[in-house]
Amino acid sequence: MPILDKINSPKDVKTLSLTEMAILAQDIRNGIINRVNTIGGHLGPDLGIVETTIAMHYVFNAPEDKFVFDVSHQVYPHKMLTGRKQGFIDKNYFSKISGYSNFEESEFDHFIIGHTSTSISLACGLAKARDIKKEKYNVIALIGDGSLSGGQAFEGFNNAATLNSNIIIIVNDNEMSIAPNEGGLYKNLAELRKSNGEATNNIFKSLGFEYYYLEEGNNTEKLIELFKKVKDIEKPTVVHIHTLKGKGYKPAEENKEPFHWTLPNFLDKKNNSIECETYESITKDYVIRKRDENDPIVLINAATPGVFGFTPDYRKELGNHYTDVGIAEEHAIAYASGLAKNGAKPILALVSSFVQRTYDQISQDLALNNSPATILIYWGGISNADMTHLCTFDIPLISNIPNVVYLAPTNKEEYITMLDWAYNQNVYPVFIRVPSNNLISTGEKDNTDYSQLNKYKIVSKGEKIAIIAAGSFFPLGKNVQSYIKETMGIDATLINPRFLTGVDKELLEDLKQTHSIIITLEDGEIDGGFGEKITRFYGNSNMKVLNYGSTKEFTDRVPIKELYARYHLTKELIVEDIKNI
Amino acid sequence: MPILDKINSPKDVKTLSLTEMAILAQDIRNGIINRVNTIGGHLGPDLGIVETTIAMHYVFNAPEDKFVFDVSHQVYPHKMLTGRKQGFIDKNYFSKISGYSNFEESEFDHFIIGHTSTSISLACGLAKARDIKKEKYNVIALIGDGSLSGGQAFEGFNNAATLNSNIIIIVNDNEMSIAPNEGGLYKNLAELRKSNGEATNNIFKSLGFEYYYLEEGNNTEKLIELFKKVKDIEKPTVVHIHTLKGKGYKPAEENKEPFHWTLPNFLDKKNNSIECETYESITKDYVIRKRDENDPIVLINAATPGVFGFTPDYRKELGNHYTDVGIAEEHAIAYASGLAKNGAKPILALVSSFVQRTYDQISQDLALNNSPATILIYWGGISNADMTHLCTFDIPLISNIPNVVYLAPTNKEEYITMLDWAYNQNVYPVFIRVPSNNLISTGEKDNTDYSQLNKYKIVSKGEKIAIIAAGSFFPLGKNVQSYIKETMGIDATLINPRFLTGVDKELLEDLKQTHSIIITLEDGEIDGGFGEKITRFYGNSNMKVLNYGSTKEFTDRVPIKELYARYHLTKELIVEDIKNI
Repeated sequence: MPILDKINSPKDVKTLSLTEMAILAQDIRNGIINRVNTIGGHLGPDLGIVETTIAMHYVFNAPEDKFVFDVSHQVYPHKMLTGRKQGFIDKNYFSKISGYSNFEESEFDHFIIGHTSTSISLACGLAKARDIKKEKYNVIALIGDGSLSGGQAFEGFNNAATLNSNIIIIVNDNEMSIAPNEGGLYKNLAELRKSNGEATNNIFKSLGFEYYYLEEGNNTEKLIELFKKVKDIEKPTVVHIHTLKGKGYKPAEENKEPFHWTLPNFLDKKNNSIECETYESITKDYVIRKRDENDPIVLINAATPGVFGFTPDYRKELGNHYTDVGIAEEHAIAYASGLAKNGAKPILALVSSFVQRTYDQISQDLALNNSPATILIYWGGISNADMTHLCTFDIPLISNIPNVVYLAPTNKEEYITMLDWAYNQNVYPVFIRVPSNNLISTGEKDNTDYSQLNKYKIVSKGEKIAIIAAGSFFPLGKNVQSYIKETMGIDATLINPRFLTGVDKELLEDLKQTHSIIITLEDGEIDGGFGEKITRFYGNSNMKVLNYGSTKEFTDRVPIKELYARYHLTKELIVEDIKNI
Repeated sequence: MPILDKINSPKDVKTLSLTEMAILAQDIRNGIINRVNTIGGHLGPDLGIVETTIAMHYVFNAPEDKFVFDVSHQVYPHKMLTGRKQGFIDKNYFSKISGYSNFEESEFDHFIIGHTSTSISLACGLAKARDIKKEKYNVIALIGDGSLSGGQAFEGFNNAATLNSNIIIIVNDNEMSIAPNEGGLYKNLAELRKSNGEATNNIFKSLGFEYYYLEEGNNTEKLIELFKKVKDIEKPTVVHIHTLKGKGYKPAEENKEPFHWTLPNFLDKKNNSIECETYESITKDYVIRKRDENDPIVLINAATPGVFGFTPDYRKELGNHYTDVGIAEEHAIAYASGLAKNGAKPILALVSSFVQRTYDQISQDLALNNSPATILIYWGGISNADMTHLCTFDIPLISNIPNVVYLAPTNKEEYITMLDWAYNQNVYPVFIRVPSNNLISTGEKDNTDYSQLNKYKIVSKGEKIAIIAAGSFFPLGKNVQSYIKETMGIDATLINPRFLTGVDKELLEDLKQTHSIIITLEDGEIDGGFGEKITRFYGNSNMKVLNYGSTKEFTDRVPIKELYARYHLTKELIVEDIKNI
């Protein structure tokens, strides 16, 4: 790392020659590849933005000039230039430096950011605060690589245009989102690229921005020239740069989608993955079958097809039965509602963390209309994720909205029956929390009629203690049951609630006869979640109820074992709590 | 009503001459004014869209051709032409016909709609379902009058542009939102109006739409001509029409903002409102004071200044200390976060029902960043509102997000101290649920230090029964306390929790010594709300806990007395429940 070795702050960047910056770019790329190959992370987006970041730090004076990196998935080069290069060079530091912007990590970051399309709004706030305090400096949002399509980005553009002062929005146009870009906006970007920024149709100019285009978005010299031109500009300004996603690592340049975010060891990885049955593959097969039966099925997702195994081949196979709305989860929900209301059969797949962007659409567009769409929620549960990507809040978020049915399958057979029921019924919006643990198969078909809402299933009937274990925590429930038997000699009852949105009053009432303790287990936040509904039911009785799940908190890359210990999510700790009653 | 009398369905519109349509327009206006003057409602938006609606029904064939009216605030003329005119002529029917689109009311409506910016997404779903079923007809979304600025509308535009088939988006440009329009988009609309649709900058063309402009948007003949031109078009198309909000009622034409939505009896109303102190006036005075002290305060709202008493004069007085972001609640939250992080002092006012649009922004942009913004939530509580505008969900929505402090003042003095604390502290995002009942003053300054989180206040100490009564339900708590004394002879304890986001463990633990029953009262949904947290705390004890609030359901213009009876929110019903334990 001949140049990077000498860079300890952006000041050091300002002393470099163009030749040295070219070497620095290579050093940075090596760092990115080094880190991602060891612990995984965003590869293509960061490789593509190296020159931009160098030029930004060369021209502007951070941290006085304030940079906001949308999503943070293009923030690695910035981190390497702002005192955090060890997080990319030395594997002992990899876990100390997060993969996202974080003001607690550095004065060069101003926010903790992990969800898309927020940078312009945040930058507007920074700029307005500057103006009202009569200060002078540049506020710069870097957005692109898909996140332009989120509605919040548009709200930000709309408001930024009225600022009457300095705000510079760098639109990084690499022709990609996570998957290829979708939507009218991206057609306009293509038009602008083709015309070297001269096309008549220009959404940014239409919104009132000063507009600059740079075709060679990976050319440091030209970037510097352009940034110098817009530095200290007193008008809302868009700088549209055309970059190459994955630049410098051939496989990522050529095959952008899988290298957007990658697991470790991609350098050695051979294509030797074993095709085994997963919840994803079951869903995909189901959709194909319905399409083959000539159903008006439409499979929808919001720009993360890879998460669900919707490969390019699979998408092609589905043709017009597939819609990627881009990063636009709000639209995705309302679109599904419209499809359902007009007799089509929508199945929408979303990640738990991103369903957070759609509360009002679930409530108003979907639930109030009782539109019979099927929404699959993936990755729900406690994990060692970055604090910006936690998936523990979807149960409180979804299950307190009227009319919605939220199902929690515990195995393959239940999932299939639930999916089929959700798809075929015509009465409710149905959410299914696809288990985040490995596929479990009982081998026995599930013949439950899920139209009988909120019927819990007694898996094995005992006495004194009943364990209500939902979804991906059902195996934990089984373990607790065994451990109670082992250590206390009690045959506890084990219940699979299957429904997260309601209470089986009859069953709970019956339990009062022969049980005195109830344990609820859910793989997510307890506050506002499933277990509290059970506790409320028993509020005026003698039943003792203990709720287990995660605490209301943002956790940041905490090992799952540590979280399970913290939340008492082990059979030993739960039995200890029972004994303490 | 010479012509309207003969109109029983859109078919009847198709037989009219232009002269008759002009008379019909006047009949419709009379109906709108008649209804709104009797029961209140949207006046200006509906008066402005009369000719458009007549022309739509003249040219298109509803319900086969499908209309989606954004927000529903421009749906009255449509209702009058589709078999529901009694709801505007005969006061016995006023409450039977809702003020919003409702598919349960008519086959000419396809959705229940009340929040903004959703129509394009919903119409996309209708259109895609049509295409996949190989059907042929027009799908038309009518949007405008402010709702264009919501991010979901942009997500809809972005996706609609790629449909490759018929979708017609009528952009009703009346130069207004609820208040005057804000943002870059509206500058572009102005440019297009000025150039008769010919301006180079054209956001709709930039997104890939066919585009038509009509300057005389209240001219039925020209509307018919234009609609005939776009009928059955096979491309995503925007029809931009320039209309006059409030047309036909001079005061509404001249003073658009107060006549957007109005209370009954506006025809007789003289300007004799008495200026009395309200939570709104206290907030306004506070902001002015801080501005006068040269604080970097920024007062923000999202296009509903009238709700909070932010009159045009007041806004002018605040100058650059005031931002109306337009209908863009997501942006509003992130913008506030940016302001707070850069040392400004944001206070954002939102209506409970509309805060639903911002879950992810509260979580990611605000709470994860611990940005010390002050957010005031108005109208929270159980009401006789339309099902699209319920304000019962904000406690479950906000209070289960980590890091957030959600306060519930019960009187003027608490509100002032809480507001001042929220404003001056630098640690948490603080939400305050501004009481929805009339101002109550104790006359005694509240000296509480709210930085001691989750400290409940024992208002009067008794025994056996404790009533924890939050925010606007504190008076109910007092009544219950008195009634318990009166009917059971017990001195119950009355507690004002003040915090909705956490539990006062010490106080609750203490109560175990001398109390056996806890009553929680909150003015909103119980599921996922405040009371359940109390119940969970007592889950492993002998304490009996009864939670009161609203049930998880959408209610539609149900009288509040009926709701209180349904939810047992009267002193008599609560005491009956206590006796039943």
